[in-house]
Amino acid sequence: MSLDKYLAALQHELNEYSYGNEPKELYEPITYLMNLGGKRLRPALVLMAYHLFKDDWQSALKPAMAIEVFHNFTLMHDDIMDEAPLRRGQPTVHIKWNRDVAILSGDVMLVAAYDLLAEAEAGNFKKIFKRFNRTAAEVCEGQQIDMNFEERGSVSEEEYITMIKLKTSVLLGFSLELGGRLAEQPEGVVNHLYDIGVNLGIGFQLKDDILDVYGDPEKFGKQVGGDIIENKKTWLMLKALEMSEPDSELHRWVAKESFDPEEKVKAVRAIFTDLGIKELAEQAMTAYFVKGFDGIAKLNVPVERKATLKAFADYLFDRDW
Amino acid sequence: MSLDKYLAALQHELNEYSYGNEPKELYEPITYLMNLGGKRLRPALVLMAYHLFKDDWQSALKPAMAIEVFHNFTLMHDDIMDEAPLRRGQPTVHIKWNRDVAILSGDVMLVAAYDLLAEAEAGNFKKIFKRFNRTAAEVCEGQQIDMNFEERGSVSEEEYITMIKLKTSVLLGFSLELGGRLAEQPEGVVNHLYDIGVNLGIGFQLKDDILDVYGDPEKFGKQVGGDIIENKKTWLMLKALEMSEPDSELHRWVAKESFDPEEKVKAVRAIFTDLGIKELAEQAMTAYFVKGFDGIAKLNVPVERKATLKAFADYLFDRDW
Repeated sequence: MSLDKYLAALQHELNEYSYGNEPKELYEPITYLMNLGGKRLRPALVLMAYHLFKDDWQSALKPAMAIEVFHNFTLMHDDIMDEAPLRRGQPTVHIKWNRDVAILSGDVMLVAAYDLLAEAEAGNFKKIFKRFNRTAAEVCEGQQIDMNFEERGSVSEEEYITMIKLKTSVLLGFSLELGGRLAEQPEGVVNHLYDIGVNLGIGFQLKDDILDVYGDPEKFGKQVGGDIIENKKTWLMLKALEMSEPDSELHRWVAKESFDPEEKVKAVRAIFTDLGIKELAEQAMTAYFVKGFDGIAKLNVPVERKATLKAFADYLFDRDW
Repeated sequence: MSLDKYLAALQHELNEYSYGNEPKELYEPITYLMNLGGKRLRPALVLMAYHLFKDDWQSALKPAMAIEVFHNFTLMHDDIMDEAPLRRGQPTVHIKWNRDVAILSGDVMLVAAYDLLAEAEAGNFKKIFKRFNRTAAEVCEGQQIDMNFEERGSVSEEEYITMIKLKTSVLLGFSLELGGRLAEQPEGVVNHLYDIGVNLGIGFQLKDDILDVYGDPEKFGKQVGGDIIENKKTWLMLKALEMSEPDSELHRWVAKESFDPEEKVKAVRAIFTDLGIKELAEQAMTAYFVKGFDGIAKLNVPVERKATLKAFADYLFDRDW
C-alpha cells in the first residue's frame, strides 16, 4: 500500500464532501481553503495507523478528513491573528473576503470537523471524542503561547519545545492515535502511536525552522528567510541568541527596525552558520525523529504492515519542501 | 419543581467547572464571560424538558451547560464582528483583552461546549452529537445572514423570520429537544419539543424587537432604542418601511447620517405608533407564542409534570426585561 493511494482516496472524499451551501459567504471560504492544497499529512497518518491493524482503511476516511478540516480551521483563524496576506501563495480568507467571514466560516469549519469525526464507526466513540477535544484545546493553547512569545524577551529551549508540541505535534500524535482507536486497539498501543506522532511532529517543526534558514527557495513551500525577517523566535534564533552577547551583531540585527530584508537574511544566516546553529538544530531534530523511528520499530505488527509508515517518517525526515 | 432550583443547580455547576488554566489569556476570558451572568434560559429548557419524563434531572446538568457555553461562545465571536464595546454592561472580551484573544478563547469555548456535551449519559449519543452539529452550523448561518442584511436595501418579513429562526430559535428548539433525547424519548416526541422551542424562540426574538422600542429602560437589559439608532433591520423597522412611501419621514430618518440619538428614537417610535406597528408586532409575536403554548398543551405527559415549562413559556411571553 503506497502513500499515493491514501492521498488519492482522501482527495476524492474531500472533493465529494459538501460542507453546506447557504449563505455562500459561510461555505465558499471553506471549499476555497481546503482546495488550496496541502500535503494532507495528518489524515494520511490516520489511515496509515488504521492500516497497521485492519485492511478496510477506507472506513477511516471520514474521521481522517475531520483532522484535515480541523487543521485548516486553525489555519483560517491563525491567518487572521498573524495578519497573513497569503496562504500557499493565494490570498488568505480574511483578505479575499473579510475578517468577519474568516471568523464565522472558521467556526463552521470546526463544527464540520466534529461532524466528520461523528462518522467514526468505532465502538469507543466517546473516548475518541474526548481525546479529540483535548487535542483541539491544546492546539489553541499552543497558538496562544506562540503569540505570548512575541511579547517576551527571552524564551528557553524547553518552553519552545512545549509550544511547538502543543501547536503542531499533538495533532500529529492524535492522528496516529485516532487510526489506532478506530482500529479498536488497546490503550497501550494507541498511546505508543501517539508518542510516535508527537516525536515525529516535533522533528517536523524543527525541520521547518531549519528549512526557513537553509532551505532551497525552489523547493521550500514558504518564503526562505521569512522567520528571520520577522524576528520569529524559532529554535535556531533562540539558540543563537542564547549563545550571543547582548551587544552582538545578531542582537543588533534583531533590534533594527528598518533594513533590507535580503541583507538581513544573509547576515543572520552567516551568524547562525558561524555559531554552528545548523548542526545543533539538526542534532535536536534528529533526536526527535530517532525517537519516532524507534517507536515505529517497536510497534508490535508485522514489518510489512508498517513499511508505509516507516517510509513516511523517512520522507518527513528527508524533506526539503 | 421550580425554575429557581434548576438555575441554582446550573449556577453551582458553572462555578465548579474548570475550562482550563494555562495560558491564562485563553481561559480567563471564558470564566469572565460566563460570570457576566445571563438568564441561563437555554440550559433551563434542557433540564425542564428532561424533567418532563425523568426525575433525575441532575444527570442532564453537564449537557445543559454545553448549550450555555456554546451560546456564550457565539456571543464572544459575535461581539468581535459587531464591534460591540459592552456585553451585559461590562467590556466585551475583545475590548478587555484583544481581538486575537477573543477569537482563540472563543474557539476553545466551542471545544469546551463539545466536551460538556460528551458528558451526556444517553445511549443515543451520536444522534445528539449530529443534531448539535446541525444546530451549531445553523446558528452561524443565521449570524452570517444577519450581517448580509446590513448590506441590503430591503428584507422581507419571511426572510427576517428565517434569519431569527436560525440565529436564535433553533438553539432554543434544540435545548428542549436535547432534554427529550437525554431522557431517551422517541423521535416524534423530541421533534415536537423542538418545534415548541423554535416557536417560543421566534416569539422571544420578536419580543426583543418590541422591547427595544417600547421597553422600560429601568427593566430592559439593553439600551432602549439601540436598534433604532443603528438602523437595525428589526421586524418593526422592516414592517414600518414596507408601509411607508420612499420619501416618508421614516426613510428620511433612516438615511440621516448625523442626528441626535434621543430625537431619532422619539421620532421613529412616534412613526411606528402612528402606523400601528406595535400592535402588528405583538400579533406576530403572539401567534408564535400561541403555537408554542399549543405544543406544550399537546405534550403527552401528566399536566403537573409540564407546569414548570408552561410557567416558563408564560414568563418569556410576559417579560419586560
